[in-house]
Amino acid sequence: MKLWDKGISIDKKIEQFTVGNDREIDIHIAKYDVIASKAHAKMLQKIGIISVEELVELLGGLKVLEEQIENGTFVIDAQFEDVHSKIEFELTKSLGEVGKKIHTARSRNDQVLVACHLYYKENLGVIKDKTKTLFETLLGLADTYKDKVLPGYTHLQVAMPSSFGLWFSAYAELMIDDVFLLDAAIKTVDQNPLGSAAGYGSSFPIDRELTTKEMGFATLKYNVVAAQMGRGKNERTIAVALGSLCNTLSRFAMDTCLYMSQNFGFISFPDELTTGSSIMPHKKNPDVFELIRGKCNKIQALQGEMVLITNNLPSGYHRDYQLLKENMIAAFEELKDILDIFNYSIQQIIVKDVDVNSDLYKYLFTVDNINTLVVEGQSFREAYQKIGGQVQDGTYVPDTSKKHTHAGSIHNLCLDKIRNKFPK
Amino acid sequence: MKLWDKGISIDKKIEQFTVGNDREIDIHIAKYDVIASKAHAKMLQKIGIISVEELVELLGGLKVLEEQIENGTFVIDAQFEDVHSKIEFELTKSLGEVGKKIHTARSRNDQVLVACHLYYKENLGVIKDKTKTLFETLLGLADTYKDKVLPGYTHLQVAMPSSFGLWFSAYAELMIDDVFLLDAAIKTVDQNPLGSAAGYGSSFPIDRELTTKEMGFATLKYNVVAAQMGRGKNERTIAVALGSLCNTLSRFAMDTCLYMSQNFGFISFPDELTTGSSIMPHKKNPDVFELIRGKCNKIQALQGEMVLITNNLPSGYHRDYQLLKENMIAAFEELKDILDIFNYSIQQIIVKDVDVNSDLYKYLFTVDNINTLVVEGQSFREAYQKIGGQVQDGTYVPDTSKKHTHAGSIHNLCLDKIRNKFPK
Amino acid sequence: MKLWDKGISIDKKIEQFTVGNDREIDIHIAKYDVIASKAHAKMLQKIGIISVEELVELLGGLKVLEEQIENGTFVIDAQFEDVHSKIEFELTKSLGEVGKKIHTARSRNDQVLVACHLYYKENLGVIKDKTKTLFETLLGLADTYKDKVLPGYTHLQVAMPSSFGLWFSAYAELMIDDVFLLDAAIKTVDQNPLGSAAGYGSSFPIDRELTTKEMGFATLKYNVVAAQMGRGKNERTIAVALGSLCNTLSRFAMDTCLYMSQNFGFISFPDELTTGSSIMPHKKNPDVFELIRGKCNKIQALQGEMVLITNNLPSGYHRDYQLLKENMIAAFEELKDILDIFNYSIQQIIVKDVDVNSDLYKYLFTVDNINTLVVEGQSFREAYQKIGGQVQDGTYVPDTSKKHTHAGSIHNLCLDKIRNKFPK
Amino acid sequence: MKLWDKGISIDKKIEQFTVGNDREIDIHIAKYDVIASKAHAKMLQKIGIISVEELVELLGGLKVLEEQIENGTFVIDAQFEDVHSKIEFELTKSLGEVGKKIHTARSRNDQVLVACHLYYKENLGVIKDKTKTLFETLLGLADTYKDKVLPGYTHLQVAMPSSFGLWFSAYAELMIDDVFLLDAAIKTVDQNPLGSAAGYGSSFPIDRELTTKEMGFATLKYNVVAAQMGRGKNERTIAVALGSLCNTLSRFAMDTCLYMSQNFGFISFPDELTTGSSIMPHKKNPDVFELIRGKCNKIQALQGEMVLITNNLPSGYHRDYQLLKENMIAAFEELKDILDIFNYSIQQIIVKDVDVNSDLYKYLFTVDNINTLVVEGQSFREAYQKIGGQVQDGTYVPDTSKKHTHAGSIHNLCLDKIRNKFPK
Repeated sequence: MKLWDKGISIDKKIEQFTVGNDREIDIHIAKYDVIASKAHAKMLQKIGIISVEELVELLGGLKVLEEQIENGTFVIDAQFEDVHSKIEFELTKSLGEVGKKIHTARSRNDQVLVACHLYYKENLGVIKDKTKTLFETLLGLADTYKDKVLPGYTHLQVAMPSSFGLWFSAYAELMIDDVFLLDAAIKTVDQNPLGSAAGYGSSFPIDRELTTKEMGFATLKYNVVAAQMGRGKNERTIAVALGSLCNTLSRFAMDTCLYMSQNFGFISFPDELTTGSSIMPHKKNPDVFELIRGKCNKIQALQGEMVLITNNLPSGYHRDYQLLKENMIAAFEELKDILDIFNYSIQQIIVKDVDVNSDLYKYLFTVDNINTLVVEGQSFREAYQKIGGQVQDGTYVPDTSKKHTHAGSIHNLCLDKIRNKFPK
Repeated sequence: MKLWDKGISIDKKIEQFTVGNDREIDIHIAKYDVIASKAHAKMLQKIGIISVEELVELLGGLKVLEEQIENGTFVIDAQFEDVHSKIEFELTKSLGEVGKKIHTARSRNDQVLVACHLYYKENLGVIKDKTKTLFETLLGLADTYKDKVLPGYTHLQVAMPSSFGLWFSAYAELMIDDVFLLDAAIKTVDQNPLGSAAGYGSSFPIDRELTTKEMGFATLKYNVVAAQMGRGKNERTIAVALGSLCNTLSRFAMDTCLYMSQNFGFISFPDELTTGSSIMPHKKNPDVFELIRGKCNKIQALQGEMVLITNNLPSGYHRDYQLLKENMIAAFEELKDILDIFNYSIQQIIVKDVDVNSDLYKYLFTVDNINTLVVEGQSFREAYQKIGGQVQDGTYVPDTSKKHTHAGSIHNLCLDKIRNKFPK
Repeated sequence: MKLWDKGISIDKKIEQFTVGNDREIDIHIAKYDVIASKAHAKMLQKIGIISVEELVELLGGLKVLEEQIENGTFVIDAQFEDVHSKIEFELTKSLGEVGKKIHTARSRNDQVLVACHLYYKENLGVIKDKTKTLFETLLGLADTYKDKVLPGYTHLQVAMPSSFGLWFSAYAELMIDDVFLLDAAIKTVDQNPLGSAAGYGSSFPIDRELTTKEMGFATLKYNVVAAQMGRGKNERTIAVALGSLCNTLSRFAMDTCLYMSQNFGFISFPDELTTGSSIMPHKKNPDVFELIRGKCNKIQALQGEMVLITNNLPSGYHRDYQLLKENMIAAFEELKDILDIFNYSIQQIIVKDVDVNSDLYKYLFTVDNINTLVVEGQSFREAYQKIGGQVQDGTYVPDTSKKHTHAGSIHNLCLDKIRNKFPK
Repeated sequence: MKLWDKGISIDKKIEQFTVGNDREIDIHIAKYDVIASKAHAKMLQKIGIISVEELVELLGGLKVLEEQIENGTFVIDAQFEDVHSKIEFELTKSLGEVGKKIHTARSRNDQVLVACHLYYKENLGVIKDKTKTLFETLLGLADTYKDKVLPGYTHLQVAMPSSFGLWFSAYAELMIDDVFLLDAAIKTVDQNPLGSAAGYGSSFPIDRELTTKEMGFATLKYNVVAAQMGRGKNERTIAVALGSLCNTLSRFAMDTCLYMSQNFGFISFPDELTTGSSIMPHKKNPDVFELIRGKCNKIQALQGEMVLITNNLPSGYHRDYQLLKENMIAAFEELKDILDIFNYSIQQIIVKDVDVNSDLYKYLFTVDNINTLVVEGQSFREAYQKIGGQVQDGTYVPDTSKKHTHAGSIHNLCLDKIRNKFPK
């Protein structure tokens, strides 16, 4: 059952090569093909291609499939090359001639494209929601631990006083920038491509405004060539949006792994979140955070794949585009797990006390000492030389009493202001 | 003259290695260091660190530098490691002690970071404007050539009728998606980082709301750790935004080069825009478009650099971040040229007539023929078989009369609707 | 059954997150774990950790597993986190205490690392062999079609005469460069890492020279830290070697798709190797070559993933490295298919006749005309001007008679010399 | 003075856009254009295109230029678009008609290609030599510090005993793998491409074996299409070879920065190699190693650029290829500096004493304790449980007496065996 079959026998291996992993991946977009098919059917009735009765039959047939998909009983058997063939086959099997009519005025490219837009839009929303959840968790942790000192490093050298409050809320605020990119990706896919057909539109008088409304898209990707060229473009944009968020998560995980090292010893986690070693009985490894870091780095790499598959190809559909969805959809499914696990795990964090009077950390306060002298009237350069001299001759005594008052500083985290910046 | 100099002699080669190309690059951000210095000085006066008289002096000194920068007489001599040292030196030379005071309550990291935010914000705006200009040019060309047929290809095979109107406006509409990313980048850098100091804020009671207003930022990057971590994060986001636009331009250039090939022969350009060969006298090469393609592909690759420099580094400043601005700023300067040249060149296009009745192109119309049969009552599958049969036995006669009416189709380009979608 | 289990219950979801897809992937390396286990057992006996009788038992147990793996009856059940746990479990189940002893003086990291070295080495050899096969196919096609003219393009403009012989053998010769990289990758993995344990070696007096010989490695990766850091380094090197070959294949596929376009029409393929369209009955699409191109581009992108997972991580094992093998092994399996399919498909090529006297192609010969004038005594610049003038005023007559005689030219392909360059 | 000038005026900006930075870059390949020109001239005389007298004149003219290049007095003025135009102009100016004859039977593409092959070959050799120097330095340091304990980490957790000897020599041995890739790159460019002309060879009876011998290439890139397609392919291969070495250096630099952190405190460097802070007088930052890391990461990113510029382009020259050499040559020049600086700086390292009996590090020895029990007759699992129990109840006493004897272990570094593996 291949739509383009012209009765020619095709070597099994080649068929397998061309079908690839579509069947596994397509389970994730089955639901969206049904949504788009319903909208398309309603539109076909509206413009007179099918009758009201035929529409009712088609919607009934699609509802059955929708339920199977929800129940998890929908399976794409080996005889079908993708979910779209499967759905058309099922409709035809149950409805006869009427089932075939749904293919009028659309092509398979249309179906893949619109199903991907719908999947991407919904899942970008889910990612944004989960990001919001993690964002709130981090702001909550920042508030809880706002008085716990954390040494601040530059060049990996002990530098200036920081705090757990500053650390947690830093990653929260950085995620806002990631949401700017998620929102850009959402806008990109929130445009109805249906009607592009093979990339040059249709001579049927299809009503694209109607399908846009039915499927809940914000607007149309008007130009049919542009709509088709969304293949690849959507994936590139989404890959950078997910990748940007992953970069933030990955670096947070890096900090976590480093701070758990005995040489820092700033944090710990309960045993359920760490693993041991097959040969070292004393080990307590931050595998969860290492895997978050590694999996996020994999997702960061995805954009390279999306660019390389599409770069320098002339306009118009190429079969290469079939390969875009596999790792893209896998990345969505992975990232949803990552966000859940991160959100759960970070709440289990055990924050340790850091002895700021130890030799290791006392120089954290040199800048505060200098600033005191400046406020007392010395020039910055003089004060810098004086404290520098004390550091060198061993007479330096840290001033741990300073309160930082400015917006966004260690003692004035502005958590509510950060919260308010999160895009709606 | 190095700010961190503690009187220690440093091997010349190492110094050169650490300074790198900062002097050349920093010319582009000199203007923004002055803007930020003015805001910082006003704030210092407001919070009582400097007097009104000192402020007047500092603003006067900064004005002199501002004019030199505008005139092109501002030079960063070899004795300075960057623009920030140079500016501080000049202020101190002309104003004495007052000149030194401007360094109070900020660090060089602060200066680099805020100057980059300002440079990026302004230049992203310029890129967006130039994108708008090209967008309008393409819509204009789409309107001019809306009746000129262009064969539409899928799989590089002759597929269905397209038009120059559809082709030009497809790339226009695609650029809207690129602007979503540009806007995300603009939002990212339109947050005031000044006050982050070395990445952990300041014990001075600095007024960051005031500098935010002075410099015209939309909001603050509140958290000082987050502000500092903008180093790299900003560049990654910008690189993907520029890269996305470049992907669109690059693919348009690819089409252009292909359509200029004698085997397509759909377009041509005047001699001023093509080059010859040192050994083939008949050549007329689309070098301008090839270089647009190549230069855009270079810019697409930039994100990889930004990610690799920053990935897996723990939080806090690392000297590696000094390397981010060089190719980032070069990419802005290059892309502004690319957009100008593209906008100029594409207007010189010579659109040729395509003979749609030739053997090469007559099959463009098979789908239209099929659809006619469907409208006459046949099922799509029957009609497909019938026209397919005609193609195989050589009896097929193309139906070139069909008008495509739906939104975004060949005969209904919706140029105004596309125009209205361009983000403000 | 988790080796590091300390009796602590772990949330199911976290466990799934940490185990990932190891079970599916590990089927490919099961064979190599057995090979390494046999070598390790022999070595343990040699240094007196186990007795000869215990060795015989262990080798017997491993032989059973080896046969299951060959038969395809070996399954890694859900209770095991990877193939290594499974194998140890099976040995212990069948042999009791003796089965446990094989874990002496090695760690799981050791096992994964050496199994990957063995898998990579064998499969790089397979890739090299298949590359050789394709290389020979292309040289054969070059010989068959050495007299068939193919227009040569520069800047996608008709430029100079080429031939199918030149085209086929160009890609053959380019693959030699790819084999240089494959050979570098083979050398990299042909070093025994076993004995690295957790990355810092073992206090047991293990005999690494013996295991090296047993497993057939060319040498040792001596330093145990270096051996462990092969995780990631091996994959980066292999990814660029496979990626380089894929770049060659991908560009060949691009040419193939372009030359199949009706606008070029230089080649065709039998129906079995092309596909139709669900809406256009006249289509004959080069899907196989498009998918080769796309899949090769995916593999080219893999290096980015390998670099991003490992970059900037300090030395010593990190759990992130667990993620390296999944897409790496998938790429090997995919590339073996690609090479088979390419080798099969390219032999089915239908080479068309190109009319070099047509208006489209007559300028191919301008350089030959010029060279004739030069040989007759004119300077190159004069001759260039003269033929250029003829082209412009329409009096140019192509000279299609020239024979190119130099090594590697259109009429002197040096196929045997190219064949001899293929690395042993 | 543009070779392809057909008397048509071209807009200044477009010219600048097409010429780009070629003049700056080309200084680096001027020497190699002269070498290739000499070989080409000798060959032209041999096949009778020029006379012995003309050859003598040309070689004289080229010698003058060669000396200017060596002296640093050779300048590519703004009127020339590249070094090749400049050299031809100078020869014609000084020698008249004879100067023009050298362009016979070659094209500018030929010149760029062969000059790049020569530059790359020589500079890859230089990189390999400098790598060898660093390799020897590291083996020397490994020997010097072979008895200095360094804690070994896995998952960034204190794991097992390592040593500075192991650490230094690990990076030495890893560089051997990088040299495998450098050697692959050297083989790739050590093939004479001259004679490819515009990519399809020449109808002149040029003697490519002779130029191969004259220029010292190991063999020919026979197929002229393959030779031309070296544009991009060479750069991709070189970029991965340099990038692989940079990955090793970058990770070594990461370790160095981490070990210099006060929280590890394993090493230090003299003041000349560290920098201070403009606001923190106690800082001693490892800027040199951070910049090595960052610059190496930039070079690692280069391969992405080389792939994106060339990917999916059909065979035959495209102007895009002009853009390949700029960052490629810059990377060579940068990497030579990096290797020099790294080699100098690492020798200044100050290795500190690590107190292995401290609470922080005592668990390094748990595996050694376990192994002692195993040697005494307990099963590994029993011994693991026993020592694990001691760790948990606080009764664990480290056994720091174990000697590791196997090849490549902490007490048997096999430095000579590693030295012998370095490829000739």
